[in-house]
Amino acid sequence: MAKRVAIVGAGVSGLASIKCCLEEGLEPTCFERTSDIGGVWRYTEYVEEGRASTYKSMISNTCKEMSAFTDFPFPEDFPVFLPHAKFLEYLHLYTKHFNLWKYIQFQTTVISIKKLPDFSTSGQWDVITETNGKQNSDVFDAVMVCIGFVTEPLLPLKSYPGIDKFNGEYFHSRDYKTPDVFAGKKVLVVGMGNSGVEIAVEATRTAKKVMISSNKGARVMSRMFDNGYPWEMAFLTRFLYLVRNFLPAHVTGWVIIPRVNQWFNHANYGVVQKDRSVMRDIVLNEEFPGYIASGKVSIRPGVKEFKENSVVFKGSQEAEEVDVVVFATGYKASFPFIDESIIKVENKHASLYKYIFPPQLEKPTLAVIGVLRPFGPVMPLVETQARWVTRIFNGLCKLPPVNTMLEEVHEKKINKSNWFGFNFDEVQKIDWLFYMDQLASLIGIKPSVPALLLSDPKLAIKIFFGPCSPYQYRLVGPGKWDGARNAIMSQWEWTLKPMRTQAVEDQSSSFGYLLKALSLFAVFVGILYGFSLF
Amino acid sequence: MAKRVAIVGAGVSGLASIKCCLEEGLEPTCFERTSDIGGVWRYTEYVEEGRASTYKSMISNTCKEMSAFTDFPFPEDFPVFLPHAKFLEYLHLYTKHFNLWKYIQFQTTVISIKKLPDFSTSGQWDVITETNGKQNSDVFDAVMVCIGFVTEPLLPLKSYPGIDKFNGEYFHSRDYKTPDVFAGKKVLVVGMGNSGVEIAVEATRTAKKVMISSNKGARVMSRMFDNGYPWEMAFLTRFLYLVRNFLPAHVTGWVIIPRVNQWFNHANYGVVQKDRSVMRDIVLNEEFPGYIASGKVSIRPGVKEFKENSVVFKGSQEAEEVDVVVFATGYKASFPFIDESIIKVENKHASLYKYIFPPQLEKPTLAVIGVLRPFGPVMPLVETQARWVTRIFNGLCKLPPVNTMLEEVHEKKINKSNWFGFNFDEVQKIDWLFYMDQLASLIGIKPSVPALLLSDPKLAIKIFFGPCSPYQYRLVGPGKWDGARNAIMSQWEWTLKPMRTQAVEDQSSSFGYLLKALSLFAVFVGILYGFSLF
Repeated sequence: MAKRVAIVGAGVSGLASIKCCLEEGLEPTCFERTSDIGGVWRYTEYVEEGRASTYKSMISNTCKEMSAFTDFPFPEDFPVFLPHAKFLEYLHLYTKHFNLWKYIQFQTTVISIKKLPDFSTSGQWDVITETNGKQNSDVFDAVMVCIGFVTEPLLPLKSYPGIDKFNGEYFHSRDYKTPDVFAGKKVLVVGMGNSGVEIAVEATRTAKKVMISSNKGARVMSRMFDNGYPWEMAFLTRFLYLVRNFLPAHVTGWVIIPRVNQWFNHANYGVVQKDRSVMRDIVLNEEFPGYIASGKVSIRPGVKEFKENSVVFKGSQEAEEVDVVVFATGYKASFPFIDESIIKVENKHASLYKYIFPPQLEKPTLAVIGVLRPFGPVMPLVETQARWVTRIFNGLCKLPPVNTMLEEVHEKKINKSNWFGFNFDEVQKIDWLFYMDQLASLIGIKPSVPALLLSDPKLAIKIFFGPCSPYQYRLVGPGKWDGARNAIMSQWEWTLKPMRTQAVEDQSSSFGYLLKALSLFAVFVGILYGFSLF
Repeated sequence: MAKRVAIVGAGVSGLASIKCCLEEGLEPTCFERTSDIGGVWRYTEYVEEGRASTYKSMISNTCKEMSAFTDFPFPEDFPVFLPHAKFLEYLHLYTKHFNLWKYIQFQTTVISIKKLPDFSTSGQWDVITETNGKQNSDVFDAVMVCIGFVTEPLLPLKSYPGIDKFNGEYFHSRDYKTPDVFAGKKVLVVGMGNSGVEIAVEATRTAKKVMISSNKGARVMSRMFDNGYPWEMAFLTRFLYLVRNFLPAHVTGWVIIPRVNQWFNHANYGVVQKDRSVMRDIVLNEEFPGYIASGKVSIRPGVKEFKENSVVFKGSQEAEEVDVVVFATGYKASFPFIDESIIKVENKHASLYKYIFPPQLEKPTLAVIGVLRPFGPVMPLVETQARWVTRIFNGLCKLPPVNTMLEEVHEKKINKSNWFGFNFDEVQKIDWLFYMDQLASLIGIKPSVPALLLSDPKLAIKIFFGPCSPYQYRLVGPGKWDGARNAIMSQWEWTLKPMRTQAVEDQSSSFGYLLKALSLFAVFVGILYGFSLF
């Protein structure tokens, strides 16, 4: 008899999990507390308790070609970066195509997930759910927790002396929907992550004054990299991965930062990241520099204290008037329906093997999907997690011994610096390609460039130098997809197609190239002189 | 007795003209039809007849350091790119500092400007004005027309077949104020100039769908150039001016376009300029590429025809639904109060010597200020025009013989291609630095780099390689300003100061530089491979 798997949540991770269960011969039941799929990608005008929430103008930070599930490209007419409504439309297409809808029980909240008394032998769970006020208990052979990490806002009010005396309004960025709430007000956004910056930019449309404050600073980048190509298509290649892991971590910082600064010099704009050997979140926002330059958004250091109607920033004595404060201070992992002895959250982070499995469980029948922050697209990553997890559940893959897992989890937890590659400032952050390849090796779906060089050199070159698009993980092994090669070969066309709404001449020629090279040199000399010296 | 000069309009050109008259011992009287100064920079909620109009969110396209009058820098806390309210504030400061207010007659419309019967000897004009419905006639020794070129919208409806059958709403971009008018509608913006692009981007905040259509395409650039420095501070240098005038015109195109494309490849985004040897307006907008990539704004070719509720684009059979059309089709020069025999407007362009003097007048006592479109900041340019004009009026400078002037005007009119430097698609467009230096030579205020190299080499180097800031035209000759040298030496600090709202470490070191150079090379190779080949 097929093993029964309970899946909590029908967002991106939940949908991928249902599909992977079906592919691996498991029997999924997905519990979704709302009446629709989509999770964070389903915009609602009001915040719903216990569910991820987003604002009206939200657009994906990763492009459609890199964000797709590994065997289901976005439709060709979808834009390159996706407004939430388009993203949700894609998730509906996916659900329909793979016939996932019937496995979802909507309006059903998971109340608790507990080990059965015979867990050490059966590995089974008692899952209590509630639908329309009526509770129900059921036994499952395995559980996949797919609630993401943006449901529980982190609002460390104790770090902000005087906030209790503050007479103005304040709320967490999660509660932000549209800039109407700022009409005519003096606004302070605390935190310079993606949400903080986007809310600050939007606030200028209605607010009287907008300030954004940060202790640690930020690195801001455009979603459009050189030539307007999506940033991850340029950045997430196997070739560059090798380059950056070949360079010491400090040098990697020196490689990345000038490229980011070429767009706008952060020091000149009063935005700066304090410790440059550590990789913080890169904020993706094209509009921010223009808003700083036109004075619409003012940069401020960290908050020292709040007063009744004002705020004092670090390194300053002066209080500045403020009416509304938005705390864009992030989220913390939270699993209210599971006992702490099973998943322990410390310092915002759950201690899980490969960010998935509680290492000390007697049976590997509980997995957490999507509780990490890759420097790259989330969707193919959570799908790959689900592919591995379902193969653990059905016994085709195995976990290492508990000691090995605990050791790795501990190493992760102390987040020590690497000599090579990236160092991240938080445990949940990972190098996307490193993690994807690690899971892919465990599943047996990692493409081999040397082997492909012999059998299909064109493809091998695309795979090595081109963007590491999700389809690369459907070329070989279990779940192989016949469309993968073609999807990889046409990934650039597919990316650019929605924008090519009129026939345009291709403006390159070899003569042109030569001229460009020569004249760029002249301009380069000019700019170098013009800028560095004078 | 001081000569009396009538000045029409108290915008940027009018204010500069009053000041220059005073400096040259002339007696100015400025007629302003509204109740305040500022012209296009004074935003009003409603369009006022016969006056330039702008929209609520408008920001200067040129930075404060390059946009200033030549002897009056912007206050240090003003932002780098100026919202209209800040610009107007600056104009008020200027008016107050030089005590110009008392020379302005507000609420006074100029009805006609006619030669006196003895014009060929006296050069005098009869100026009829109207205040509160009462007409007044007065004689002036000279006239400066300072009404700009954005008062008379160009709306060539005949070029749009079917527009008379179109049931939707349409208006000229001049009538645009805020995006509220687009709420829930399908919007088409015709024309891809600065206003067209800005209106399209703003429309997305309320509209259901936004398309932008153009026959000729566009070149879009960020106001923030490399490292986030203002584009004109990088581009308008004497060094680069020499470089581009040393290169043939076609090569100049090849120099500029790859630099612009490096930011985003126009062909990939469906935005493309057809004839690349000719310089069209460069559209300055950081947000546009992101809006194309996220599908919020769709690019379309030129309009073939309108139908009742839709539009058909060139090269297509299909009609697309549209509710509102905004014609961002520009403006034409217009001088309703002056007889055509004096200033003739052909093909949107007035035939004037150096864009200023009607060449065939018996006496050079009428001048037009600010009716041209420089590829650079307008304000120092109109001021320099006024400096020259007032020195012609008081006899310290002379115009060449009529034949010479007519010949130059004719040459301009046919707008033939140059072998070197820029070629522009319209007569009103000029190379800013070329024109500034030409006028400066005529006045005797052009700084000499070779002479400065001997007397003040530091300054000479700044002047040659650094941005050609307006203060360069106050170093020598009539109107010399003692603050000019200091203003030039501190121009970068002054630019960056408003953004440095917190202390930031300067992130450069020579070791860092070496590392950067080495590692950038590695990245460069990677990107070259990653992009060009695969």
